[in-house]
Amino acid sequence: MKGLFYPRTQTGKASIVPPVPWHYSGELITLEYRTDPAAVRALLPPGFEPADEDPGAVAAIWADWQSCSDSFAEVLDPVRGQYKEMFFVVRCKFQGKAYSRCIYIWVDKEFAMLRGQHQGYPKKLGSIQMSRPAYVGKGGPRLAAGGRFGVTLAAFDRRLAQGTFTITGPAERPGFVNGLPMAHNRWMPAIETDGTDSLDEVVTMSGYDVELGRCFKGDFDLELFDSPVEELLAIAPREKIAGYWHEVGVSWKAGRTLWRKNLP
Amino acid sequence: MKGLFYPRTQTGKASIVPPVPWHYSGELITLEYRTDPAAVRALLPPGFEPADEDPGAVAAIWADWQSCSDSFAEVLDPVRGQYKEMFFVVRCKFQGKAYSRCIYIWVDKEFAMLRGQHQGYPKKLGSIQMSRPAYVGKGGPRLAAGGRFGVTLAAFDRRLAQGTFTITGPAERPGFVNGLPMAHNRWMPAIETDGTDSLDEVVTMSGYDVELGRCFKGDFDLELFDSPVEELLAIAPREKIAGYWHEVGVSWKAGRTLWRKNLP
Amino acid sequence: MKGLFYPRTQTGKASIVPPVPWHYSGELITLEYRTDPAAVRALLPPGFEPADEDPGAVAAIWADWQSCSDSFAEVLDPVRGQYKEMFFVVRCKFQGKAYSRCIYIWVDKEFAMLRGQHQGYPKKLGSIQMSRPAYVGKGGPRLAAGGRFGVTLAAFDRRLAQGTFTITGPAERPGFVNGLPMAHNRWMPAIETDGTDSLDEVVTMSGYDVELGRCFKGDFDLELFDSPVEELLAIAPREKIAGYWHEVGVSWKAGRTLWRKNLP
Amino acid sequence: MKGLFYPRTQTGKASIVPPVPWHYSGELITLEYRTDPAAVRALLPPGFEPADEDPGAVAAIWADWQSCSDSFAEVLDPVRGQYKEMFFVVRCKFQGKAYSRCIYIWVDKEFAMLRGQHQGYPKKLGSIQMSRPAYVGKGGPRLAAGGRFGVTLAAFDRRLAQGTFTITGPAERPGFVNGLPMAHNRWMPAIETDGTDSLDEVVTMSGYDVELGRCFKGDFDLELFDSPVEELLAIAPREKIAGYWHEVGVSWKAGRTLWRKNLP
Repeated sequence: MKGLFYPRTQTGKASIVPPVPWHYSGELITLEYRTDPAAVRALLPPGFEPADEDPGAVAAIWADWQSCSDSFAEVLDPVRGQYKEMFFVVRCKFQGKAYSRCIYIWVDKEFAMLRGQHQGYPKKLGSIQMSRPAYVGKGGPRLAAGGRFGVTLAAFDRRLAQGTFTITGPAERPGFVNGLPMAHNRWMPAIETDGTDSLDEVVTMSGYDVELGRCFKGDFDLELFDSPVEELLAIAPREKIAGYWHEVGVSWKAGRTLWRKNLP
Repeated sequence: MKGLFYPRTQTGKASIVPPVPWHYSGELITLEYRTDPAAVRALLPPGFEPADEDPGAVAAIWADWQSCSDSFAEVLDPVRGQYKEMFFVVRCKFQGKAYSRCIYIWVDKEFAMLRGQHQGYPKKLGSIQMSRPAYVGKGGPRLAAGGRFGVTLAAFDRRLAQGTFTITGPAERPGFVNGLPMAHNRWMPAIETDGTDSLDEVVTMSGYDVELGRCFKGDFDLELFDSPVEELLAIAPREKIAGYWHEVGVSWKAGRTLWRKNLP
Repeated sequence: MKGLFYPRTQTGKASIVPPVPWHYSGELITLEYRTDPAAVRALLPPGFEPADEDPGAVAAIWADWQSCSDSFAEVLDPVRGQYKEMFFVVRCKFQGKAYSRCIYIWVDKEFAMLRGQHQGYPKKLGSIQMSRPAYVGKGGPRLAAGGRFGVTLAAFDRRLAQGTFTITGPAERPGFVNGLPMAHNRWMPAIETDGTDSLDEVVTMSGYDVELGRCFKGDFDLELFDSPVEELLAIAPREKIAGYWHEVGVSWKAGRTLWRKNLP
Repeated sequence: MKGLFYPRTQTGKASIVPPVPWHYSGELITLEYRTDPAAVRALLPPGFEPADEDPGAVAAIWADWQSCSDSFAEVLDPVRGQYKEMFFVVRCKFQGKAYSRCIYIWVDKEFAMLRGQHQGYPKKLGSIQMSRPAYVGKGGPRLAAGGRFGVTLAAFDRRLAQGTFTITGPAERPGFVNGLPMAHNRWMPAIETDGTDSLDEVVTMSGYDVELGRCFKGDFDLELFDSPVEELLAIAPREKIAGYWHEVGVSWKAGRTLWRKNLP
């Protein structure tokens, strides 16, 4: 039976995600700020510790991706390759080593949800919106000092986050919070649904063939809102660090298991 | 850390699915037919065998659900509880016992995707459409002989299935293909993405407090279409059995592991 | 050239709406309350006066419709016939006669927008959600005393309204605010976009073959929220009147022009 | 009462479209081909004649827009400004003068539908997809020879069009079919719905402050599909002319009435 996830078939054609490698080209807006370090610590599972430095640092990231498999078929049928995502990243330590870690994430396509689950990203669906650079006309911001971008997130018909970002000048690199290898948990509760897990792993991963494109820094504001099924107010900004508009090209094919619970 | 799936937090409030039990009330249209038994067999993973009787029998099922947790909060915020789904079910044998098995399934909400993953349903997102009974006016079919319903399925901007169902009279029960406990695989590929699985299980489950409501049988037609990412033509109808409109109320809290691969 | 609206073609097949008559079957939740009468008056164009009695009465209505043309093709392809809508109705006087009038309305399908424009309903798109009655299971409310329904409205990723309705008992009819013939304006600004209109009409209409089905009254609560592109706070409830769950079947084929501005 | 279209209020805040001027920045893929000239002629209303030259020429255009009003608020809340559209344009003559004319068009936001109606574009809603240029990574095509883009259109869960475009080199301008001032009909059927119109106009318009940005030409293929509510097969390509990827910045504030039926 072929197919990374499901459904598995003789050919794998119907699988919800194509085989690796996966290739990504995207435009991102990254807003880095400090929240209550205790709120970050409270989101780290057993085995994880806060980052040694700046343990309350958070990156709120909006991304507009095009993605594809090695067949590149998705580039020509863009409904199967384009998606937007919004995610919050913190830093942490596991087994004495520093990692980045995604604590919350929303995407707007199902294939992106499943690829993310494979990688331990806790993906939900949402409505992710962000201004794009414009090269002509007045309908969008320029990639230059003064260019002003808007970002919003919503789920279940409630707005969860909104912000603006204004370019002040070029930057070397888009912040530091999301710059380490990721350390994520992958959990699958036992079908007995008795509080035990059938799968309980910590995994790490990085992309390869990373291309950092144009990069600009700037000022921002960011508001987070409440919802009956979210906990964003707990990680609200206390102090702004910096914002970035930047491009990323990256490919992904595998990660590495750091830890796995001995299952009976 | 609380939360069945992810994200896990101190409170569990942000988890993508609420705690069990889950309660469901739905209206379904079930179209039973026979396809090539070899096509069904080809979709059964190692360890599974075809059903002893009528091994080419398939149920194509459209369902319009309302669902909720024990808090019933989702009933009052229906965007978090209502969803539609379309699924194909066959029968099979595992460890000598007969089961029903979902081979393909689409839903239109993310919480339903994740609850389904927990249960081993290979859920994708799609656009699922079905006529509802009307009690006044000419805008919909009556729940009576001659009442005619339409059903469609689409994903990635392509229509995948469409059919019609016409009531001929009352029925005792809605067919036989989806009537057994389910036997599903739960796979999680290893993060090494090397063709091995971190989780490889066969699970079974049934609902409880099942209430079968109104039930009607009738004639139907059904067309399946091709897509670059589906394999529905392989299970196209060769012979129709019968169609049903029916109601189901059911709750779910746990399943049982039938088999788990020894992991290193 | 055939086609009620556009595009007009030799056959009319591609027209955004099919020819009249249009048939509707729906389930509605109507929440009647009183707001500041001055807020209602402020929404009446020149030529209109407030209702003589209870001029601050408002009906906030959620509706889940199935609709079709005389071909009934849309019943069998439900993506072309089903839609939800939420609208606010007040009463008013025009040329000395009492009318109902829709002041704000959202739907979730484009064909419903255009049919509404024809009738002078100021239709926008939104996400309209409402609980449906359940006949089995715990996933939805029963059509009986104690049955509790939720209703919500959102647009542009912001929640605009939410409420609950609890049945207390059967009712004869679903309130009074939306019970009169409608009086609506139909405006088309001149392409010169200089503040003048190419079309400026007041029209009235009623459906025919009205079937009132099951009807229940009850208690409710309702909250309205702000948005940069809405003005709902101005018509917030000051005093509740009553809520209703009810069914309507109706057909529509024509209205009547009450007034038309003499155009040069 | 303020508000270009509806709802009209004391402030105009709730109007479905903001006041003019409207500003647009977009990326477009234009595929020009020849169809049966009789099919184009059949879509021209009374008073229009086919173009003198190349009367079967059609432009199939995909556009990814950011748009805003003079407040630029929509740039910072992009769900209110971004939209995609797909449209077919032909050329024609009216009152002896040559014009471009949109014969079919789909957008994915309601504010774009209404702005289009004002301008006489026969806008429906659909799912419009197109590859975007990528500047890093393998997830999208480069703006250079060999860059290959995909475009698709769907409505009512059916795919209506799909194509690919491959850049061969830079171009001076993006074809000729959509290059003239537009001539559109604006119709509003009488509420009596008796086959007469309350509004029957021919209008023309052009944008101002047009900025043509980067422009590339190339090869393409294009397939059109059938639907119960479309007539695209009638205008299928017989001969390809050329394809283009190009940028446009433009503002719009007014058009001009060319003809209006004397209304009683």
